[in-house]
Amino acid sequence: MSDINGDRLLADLRALSTIGGQADGGVDRLAWSEADLAARRWFAERIREAGLEPRVDSALNVFGHLAGSAGPRLLTGSHLDSVPNGGRLDGAYGAVAGLEVLRTMVESGDPLAARVEVVGFADEEGVRFGMGLIGSLALTGELELDRLREERDWQGVPIRQVIASAGREVDRLLDSQQHLHSIAAYLELHIEQGPRMEADGVDLAVVTGIVGVYREQVRVIGRQNHAGTTPFGLRHDAGRVAARAAAGLRELVEGVDPGAVANIGVMRFDPGGVNVIPGRAAFTLEVRHLEEPVVQRIVETFNENLETICAEEGCRAETERLSWVPPARMDNEQMAMLEAACQELGRTPAKLSSGAGHDAAILARHVPTGMLFVPSIGGVSHAPQENTSDEHLVLGARALHRGVRAAAARIK
Amino acid sequence: MSDINGDRLLADLRALSTIGGQADGGVDRLAWSEADLAARRWFAERIREAGLEPRVDSALNVFGHLAGSAGPRLLTGSHLDSVPNGGRLDGAYGAVAGLEVLRTMVESGDPLAARVEVVGFADEEGVRFGMGLIGSLALTGELELDRLREERDWQGVPIRQVIASAGREVDRLLDSQQHLHSIAAYLELHIEQGPRMEADGVDLAVVTGIVGVYREQVRVIGRQNHAGTTPFGLRHDAGRVAARAAAGLRELVEGVDPGAVANIGVMRFDPGGVNVIPGRAAFTLEVRHLEEPVVQRIVETFNENLETICAEEGCRAETERLSWVPPARMDNEQMAMLEAACQELGRTPAKLSSGAGHDAAILARHVPTGMLFVPSIGGVSHAPQENTSDEHLVLGARALHRGVRAAAARIK
Repeated sequence: MSDINGDRLLADLRALSTIGGQADGGVDRLAWSEADLAARRWFAERIREAGLEPRVDSALNVFGHLAGSAGPRLLTGSHLDSVPNGGRLDGAYGAVAGLEVLRTMVESGDPLAARVEVVGFADEEGVRFGMGLIGSLALTGELELDRLREERDWQGVPIRQVIASAGREVDRLLDSQQHLHSIAAYLELHIEQGPRMEADGVDLAVVTGIVGVYREQVRVIGRQNHAGTTPFGLRHDAGRVAARAAAGLRELVEGVDPGAVANIGVMRFDPGGVNVIPGRAAFTLEVRHLEEPVVQRIVETFNENLETICAEEGCRAETERLSWVPPARMDNEQMAMLEAACQELGRTPAKLSSGAGHDAAILARHVPTGMLFVPSIGGVSHAPQENTSDEHLVLGARALHRGVRAAAARIK
Repeated sequence: MSDINGDRLLADLRALSTIGGQADGGVDRLAWSEADLAARRWFAERIREAGLEPRVDSALNVFGHLAGSAGPRLLTGSHLDSVPNGGRLDGAYGAVAGLEVLRTMVESGDPLAARVEVVGFADEEGVRFGMGLIGSLALTGELELDRLREERDWQGVPIRQVIASAGREVDRLLDSQQHLHSIAAYLELHIEQGPRMEADGVDLAVVTGIVGVYREQVRVIGRQNHAGTTPFGLRHDAGRVAARAAAGLRELVEGVDPGAVANIGVMRFDPGGVNVIPGRAAFTLEVRHLEEPVVQRIVETFNENLETICAEEGCRAETERLSWVPPARMDNEQMAMLEAACQELGRTPAKLSSGAGHDAAILARHVPTGMLFVPSIGGVSHAPQENTSDEHLVLGARALHRGVRAAAARIK
């Protein structure tokens, strides 16, 4: 078995990072923007150069496979879009590594190459239209693009029009045939986007699942009053309720499950006067864990604790669920094959749940899915400083190569 | 000694409340607005009707005294301006009660009437130009109106131009002569604007002093990060620091002095994303007490505690003093005369510090000053629901009448 070309992988990552590239080293490739479309054309061109057949579906996901080969195939890749002022690796790494794996297989005459397809997904990040994972949702048929709500728009242009207009740029490749039936499994290589692997000194990690994400809006209602004339004992301070609830969040979550995380990222006191006791406070709660019952227990405990604080402070609270994305389990067989691939390279991979969402979470609902992580330097992501050592980038692609071959070999 | 006319007092309060009056019972008389100027003309007209001489100074404070009488005089009154959507009694009550006291003295031929002057101060609230107490600061010479900074403006019109333009409305009364030298003492009757008197069931209170007010801006700097991929132990959560500091405020203040109050009225997390660990948090701290060392100790303790929390959470904090208004002590002799006046009416007054600022705080720096409170129903002020029973309004004016006579009799 011949190995992937590490220099070519790194050169392609550098070339892709210049599309939508910023002076500070960051990347700006909002879904279906000019830069994103340029990246999709670039990716299709690399696919063609590798002797593969490029195709684009109606969401503008870009695919590549050996012409004339029949499915079902093992799909591998990631997304090509980025957040604003994001990093060069989030998504791009998995797509380019998938391409490097497949072209290595083609070049070496690997008979398994016909059973592999590479993908560059569209709009994973969800920055423009308030929902992400649109490319993988469209591929799996969970989302019908022409039924998207009109109100999902970007600076006044409805999402359907944005995609249609972008589609004309690549229409010579357009093949809107939904082809989930031809996909036997999915493997995604990604940067960790967190600090755990670096902190633990591991080079590779097999992802066990992608956490479920619960979000709620909390509004605390107290009584607005004069901060100079109202003694503490006669206050109904909505700000104090919100602060007490937020201050105790970490201990509350750790008390339920040390592996869970939660966040209060938005906080505002109203009316917001230096000398006015807040009559209202508003904040958001987000809870993530791989087990749905753990998420439920944390949310229930938080809301009960909030009620207790409200009773003590003479306030009341309203909670409203904003969203719930269930956890996605990775497939045991795919995980085992990825673990074996890491061991072939002399590495014992960590087993981690992913705290961030990925296209793999959608694919996992339809086909056996596995995911591999490489470390993020300093745990930084969604920022120009996002990075991973060249050594880890090459190592990850080598492990993916072995995992892809093992998974492709299993396809009947 | 003849008594004040309670029905006339209440009728005048009702009449004044219609100037800038709102449908919900509230009052909108922003300093030097059309409604405020109308209230000043109305007040000057009532002064004239009472056989007194109305005068207006360059800040548009309205004064009234017996024509031909020479100073020094006992000054009594309060302010005529209101906050937006404020109540009918804050300020207006003390000005109208002062007028009722003086006209009662004039009508009854009280020889002490010549030693009394009534005032309706301008811009006590400080809503329009970011500083309050402008009328009393101008009267005492602490503020020279024509040296006010140009950038103090209202919708682009500099404060000096606002006052000058307003002044033309009342220029036939204008007497810009500064006359602090003719003021021997100052007495102010006001609603409590807090819930303590009602809670304790007292009808009258002699104010011992007006609290000092310290304000600071706090900025917490942590590290913005992904809320799903960053475990609690690796976070630098600026929001958690701010929440912990705010949650512990009451206990911290009560630990230093149970009579002090403090408030965190403004709170914001940045960048403010549901799935983003706050990289920054900003909030305000306000501390009030009658003793400057107590305020200092609370601020020091708060800032030390904030440092400790920052160290625990891997963040840092910057604090910036926004303002410091020192406490104002009421004059012992004036307090004793007001206490005796209450006792003459069969009441044992409470002794309270004022948590809110008043014109009396400025006058107290120049002349012996005393202040009397009546209860606020429900402790509500700066709101349309601000109210005091008619019984208490009349009782307060009767006590003021006795206090004014006693103080005027002492003037050499």
